[in-house]
Amino acid sequence: MNDYSERILKLQQLMGEENIDIAVVGPTNNMRYILGDAPHPDERFCVLIITGDQLQFIVPKLNAQKVKSFSDVDMLTWGDAEGPGGAIRSSLFSKKKRGRLAIDGSMRADFLLQFFPFVQPKVTFSLDPILSNMRIRKSVHEVEMLHRAAKQADKAMEAAVKACRAGVTEKEIAWETESAFRREGADEVIFTLIAAGTNGALPHHYSGMYALKQGDGVIIDIGASLDGYKSDITRVVHIGDPLEEFQEIYNVVLEANENARESVHQGISAREVDLAARSVIEESGFRDFFIHRTGHGIGLDVHEEPYINEINTQILETGMAFSIEPGIYIPGKLGIRIEDIVVVTSDGSKLLTGFDHELVVK
Amino acid sequence: MNDYSERILKLQQLMGEENIDIAVVGPTNNMRYILGDAPHPDERFCVLIITGDQLQFIVPKLNAQKVKSFSDVDMLTWGDAEGPGGAIRSSLFSKKKRGRLAIDGSMRADFLLQFFPFVQPKVTFSLDPILSNMRIRKSVHEVEMLHRAAKQADKAMEAAVKACRAGVTEKEIAWETESAFRREGADEVIFTLIAAGTNGALPHHYSGMYALKQGDGVIIDIGASLDGYKSDITRVVHIGDPLEEFQEIYNVVLEANENARESVHQGISAREVDLAARSVIEESGFRDFFIHRTGHGIGLDVHEEPYINEINTQILETGMAFSIEPGIYIPGKLGIRIEDIVVVTSDGSKLLTGFDHELVVK
Repeated sequence: MNDYSERILKLQQLMGEENIDIAVVGPTNNMRYILGDAPHPDERFCVLIITGDQLQFIVPKLNAQKVKSFSDVDMLTWGDAEGPGGAIRSSLFSKKKRGRLAIDGSMRADFLLQFFPFVQPKVTFSLDPILSNMRIRKSVHEVEMLHRAAKQADKAMEAAVKACRAGVTEKEIAWETESAFRREGADEVIFTLIAAGTNGALPHHYSGMYALKQGDGVIIDIGASLDGYKSDITRVVHIGDPLEEFQEIYNVVLEANENARESVHQGISAREVDLAARSVIEESGFRDFFIHRTGHGIGLDVHEEPYINEINTQILETGMAFSIEPGIYIPGKLGIRIEDIVVVTSDGSKLLTGFDHELVVK
Repeated sequence: MNDYSERILKLQQLMGEENIDIAVVGPTNNMRYILGDAPHPDERFCVLIITGDQLQFIVPKLNAQKVKSFSDVDMLTWGDAEGPGGAIRSSLFSKKKRGRLAIDGSMRADFLLQFFPFVQPKVTFSLDPILSNMRIRKSVHEVEMLHRAAKQADKAMEAAVKACRAGVTEKEIAWETESAFRREGADEVIFTLIAAGTNGALPHHYSGMYALKQGDGVIIDIGASLDGYKSDITRVVHIGDPLEEFQEIYNVVLEANENARESVHQGISAREVDLAARSVIEESGFRDFFIHRTGHGIGLDVHEEPYINEINTQILETGMAFSIEPGIYIPGKLGIRIEDIVVVTSDGSKLLTGFDHELVVK
């Protein structure tokens, strides 16, 4: 029995415990987790249906060969000319019309609408808590993959830092970074967020045509995919010597990052790790300027459980991997964020990101 | 009044005609179409709510500044610590509990689940037919953008063709292509599908570690985003002189491509364009090996209305832009697809892709 057969059996067992009669998974990382692969997602209806004792695919005809290459699950196909209605009508849905339905929340909303005419589930809710509960504990192999991905991100960060100088645009730095990721073998570059000067105050700023100038801070937040597993790291560069205020805020964020990392061990809760970062920032008077959670789990998805925030009571266990990324954002002025990936181990935690933590002055 | 105000008024008018009380749009290309921009999508609940006379955003706190930068619509924010429930409860949803609800089908399914506890809409259905009906007719500016994107794809295709030789892997060609797209100013490379040898028989094959060898056909299907507008082009390279059978099938596909392109003019239906391609392939005896539609609309999304398939009775009008991409796939053996982008004009059609159509023998 391979990993994937085990995962399906485990999922069916958890479905039974939650009285879920039918589960639906789209061509997402949930499918990749369950079966090891998935067709390229597009607007065409494509789902894996799971009941307590059966599996069935509904697949667009042009993905049929691809699906056969990684799965021998029974398959209904539909062509572009007919639409998926016929396949849905003759599928396992028809036998489970009145069951409790749980869906893959990361698939497209119109996939969910597609089967409403055919089923009248008493309750429709998200399958994600169950799948998350499986995906949250990484196997030794998965931790290795995350470590390899993190090392790759360290190399890409070197390239990004090297590219930072006055006159260069955010987009140019992003492209240098992306090239480095690909040279290192990334199968996909997920994001290269370069936020210079006042753009740093926007946590999700897209890299744009802004050219770096003397006196700018530059947030570099980058991540890619290596055989499906994701990396995510953030460091800060300053063009020219920073003002005292910038360095002071940097030191607060770094202390928050370190304090949270040091707090990580089996048995502590996610919210306690959040608090370890948040308390440092609050005590320094920047409470209102830390506008997001301290971190997020990472695996096949770049954001997944466990979320490291003020309310998550999840107790951390060996194999849980997540980011620690406190930040301070002063609107219209500056932003600083320092992000690492850690994994919980039997004797504390292991830091997967290896890039130096000091402010890089260029 | 700018384009975006006009689009909102038009959408509200169409909602009125369809008796839709409340519409929900996620951080997708639909939001980009309506407002000109959208926050970076992730798992955090982020929607624009539209009623007949009001607009309201529900936005994760860390995206608030970004949203303010492109929209002055009333905004409710929520923090990572609290979740979106409170914001949803105090939003326009609370006033429209019993209304008809239409949703952005391309947003995440769990966004749809989020507001089920707060609204009991008589009907929940997709807003996409209405938005598609707006997006399907491109403005002069939009056609210009698609043309610029297509020219960029021509350049990237040159790089891809140049990279093809025995011993090079699909992934290496993909990366050369991606680099060329970015050098030409693409803001994002959407896909670089390089399918060599028998992989060509899989219409949605991902570029892999397969190394090209003498006698291989290579399908090159690539597309990127230029200021949000997408490109999409497919050409075929052969390493060494092709066997007679390969060239014959190529000629059939090319004739199907040409016949469909020549058929395009105002007043013809999408299905008639499909038939113009399909009939050539069927008459040549390859009916069962053309396993997808002839084409898809293109704009902010790489796949959108009008779909060029056997059942779409949509009458083509000036400004509609779409791909023409017939293909023949012999499982385990070979695949050939030739794809162009055309736009309907007042006097016929205009071909946006400029790359030569002959089989490239290298």
